[in-house]
Amino acid sequence: MNKLYSEILARVEVEIKGIELPKTPTNLYDPIRYIMGLGGKRVRPVLTLLGNQLYKGNYEDAIHHAMAVEMFHNFTLVHDDVMDSADVRRGLPTVHKKWSSNIALLSGDGMLVAAYSLLQKTSPETFSRTARIFSDTALEVCEGQQLDMDFSELDSISMEDYLGMIRQKTAVLLSGSLKIGAVVGGADDQDLPNLEAFAESLGLAFQVKDDYLDAFGSSEFGKVLGGDIMEGKRTWLTVKSLELLGGKGSQRLHEAYAIKDFDDRVKEVLMIYRELNIDKLAQQQVQEYSDIAQKSLAKMRGDKDAIETLSWLVDQLIGRTI
Amino acid sequence: MNKLYSEILARVEVEIKGIELPKTPTNLYDPIRYIMGLGGKRVRPVLTLLGNQLYKGNYEDAIHHAMAVEMFHNFTLVHDDVMDSADVRRGLPTVHKKWSSNIALLSGDGMLVAAYSLLQKTSPETFSRTARIFSDTALEVCEGQQLDMDFSELDSISMEDYLGMIRQKTAVLLSGSLKIGAVVGGADDQDLPNLEAFAESLGLAFQVKDDYLDAFGSSEFGKVLGGDIMEGKRTWLTVKSLELLGGKGSQRLHEAYAIKDFDDRVKEVLMIYRELNIDKLAQQQVQEYSDIAQKSLAKMRGDKDAIETLSWLVDQLIGRTI
Repeated sequence: MNKLYSEILARVEVEIKGIELPKTPTNLYDPIRYIMGLGGKRVRPVLTLLGNQLYKGNYEDAIHHAMAVEMFHNFTLVHDDVMDSADVRRGLPTVHKKWSSNIALLSGDGMLVAAYSLLQKTSPETFSRTARIFSDTALEVCEGQQLDMDFSELDSISMEDYLGMIRQKTAVLLSGSLKIGAVVGGADDQDLPNLEAFAESLGLAFQVKDDYLDAFGSSEFGKVLGGDIMEGKRTWLTVKSLELLGGKGSQRLHEAYAIKDFDDRVKEVLMIYRELNIDKLAQQQVQEYSDIAQKSLAKMRGDKDAIETLSWLVDQLIGRTI
Repeated sequence: MNKLYSEILARVEVEIKGIELPKTPTNLYDPIRYIMGLGGKRVRPVLTLLGNQLYKGNYEDAIHHAMAVEMFHNFTLVHDDVMDSADVRRGLPTVHKKWSSNIALLSGDGMLVAAYSLLQKTSPETFSRTARIFSDTALEVCEGQQLDMDFSELDSISMEDYLGMIRQKTAVLLSGSLKIGAVVGGADDQDLPNLEAFAESLGLAFQVKDDYLDAFGSSEFGKVLGGDIMEGKRTWLTVKSLELLGGKGSQRLHEAYAIKDFDDRVKEVLMIYRELNIDKLAQQQVQEYSDIAQKSLAKMRGDKDAIETLSWLVDQLIGRTI
């Protein structure tokens, strides 16, 4: 593993464990401790600290901002799980399952407020700049989630609409996390577009890879393949398939998705995907976004160690097999 | 009606109508326009503008902050209505009833973010001070709502706990609204405790009066009396009754609340209230809080017109009959 990355990740985990929240009401704050402690890749706070290191040569100054973006990310997980009626998150019960929907709703609200409070642990000038990025990002994430729900009611959507949706739902938060760290480190506004291009491409590569892995990944760590197919979820794979099959041909995919038996449904959908070379096309798309990310990185000035680590991170996220 | 008050109220309504929100996704932004347009007393934004006038002699500078607190208040209404499964708000369908719970959840989230964005339409220094008050207030409101839900599971709670809960759920937002306006107007930190004492007492008076009116108010404008009793809601009246009835005696109130027929239940509960003089005790409590508010006001320095209007507002809110 990359040295700077593991150092930063360890720092993030320590900070999350030490995060200060009131004790009571326990039904408001226990769920926050629970979801924050569930683990995860912590990509967003790591990006914040790397963004800071890029400009300042150290990462410690942005630790509260890193916590703010992780708190925000976990807020979206808690509310999204309510909206999706998801029972399990990282192998454990979701907040609304373990407590109740009302508690999930309210502790999620509390997390969004807490994220702003964390963001404010800095000078007024820095808070003002990072809060601007944070609020703009947060509203885009809400828009992305709404589009995701809207699209699920439609028979088909264009690839452009799908990519626009995952950009808002996933990529802009990676971008916001990096930019916030960079601003804390002293980045100028003119530095931000390139950071944005890098992180949004990384985010898109990451999400398409995620869609790919759900159907074609490795099941060696006990992961159930085809979960998205069982849930009837729209992914890059379904959107691309419908595009290739065209109006009338798309009937075949809809019929496959209508199969009641989960095993049969997954088998049939995967067969269509393979016929259409969807696996290779998805890998290509991931590679294209990854290339854009690396090109943006090549133009980046700043701490070499941070740049190398960001480059390593791209390779990790697109090269992963689970 | 008070001249400054009606001027400010008219300004608030104009600003709410002109509030800028993106058009799409419509399922995210239409519910925000809908709930903001539903009306209401607009007490919170009016307090913000009066707080500003108090120190600056004009109110216009705090207009975005006034919108921020009204946006936050409406966010709490949207999420509270989901939690309470309430179908009607101000005589019209609630957001989750008109759209869906998921849309109410998400557009509520968007409103909380939008509130911070509105708050930021000012200098970094002012934003930093007002955001501190705003976040602290918002977290207290979440705590108050959680306590309200927690208490509803209990057989009885103490008057101290009940008052603590309504302080957090209702009074601190009135206080936060006034303080934010005052800070924009140039108030020092040392001015804030007295503003807080004033607005929190006003909020407590307002809430106890609300509880009183639901049982003993006028039905001349078509308002259904006893709604809280029908819903089995805990109010100042129930808490006080249980306190007076004591352990064994409280059985009588629980039995009255168990009556299935709504008319009979309301009749029986009101009879117990009257026997215990709850109506007069509630009026006394309202008067006590109102006196504290007026005393805090007497100590306040600043624009005379604003102080007079705040005093008038206290009398209005505690003197109202619906």
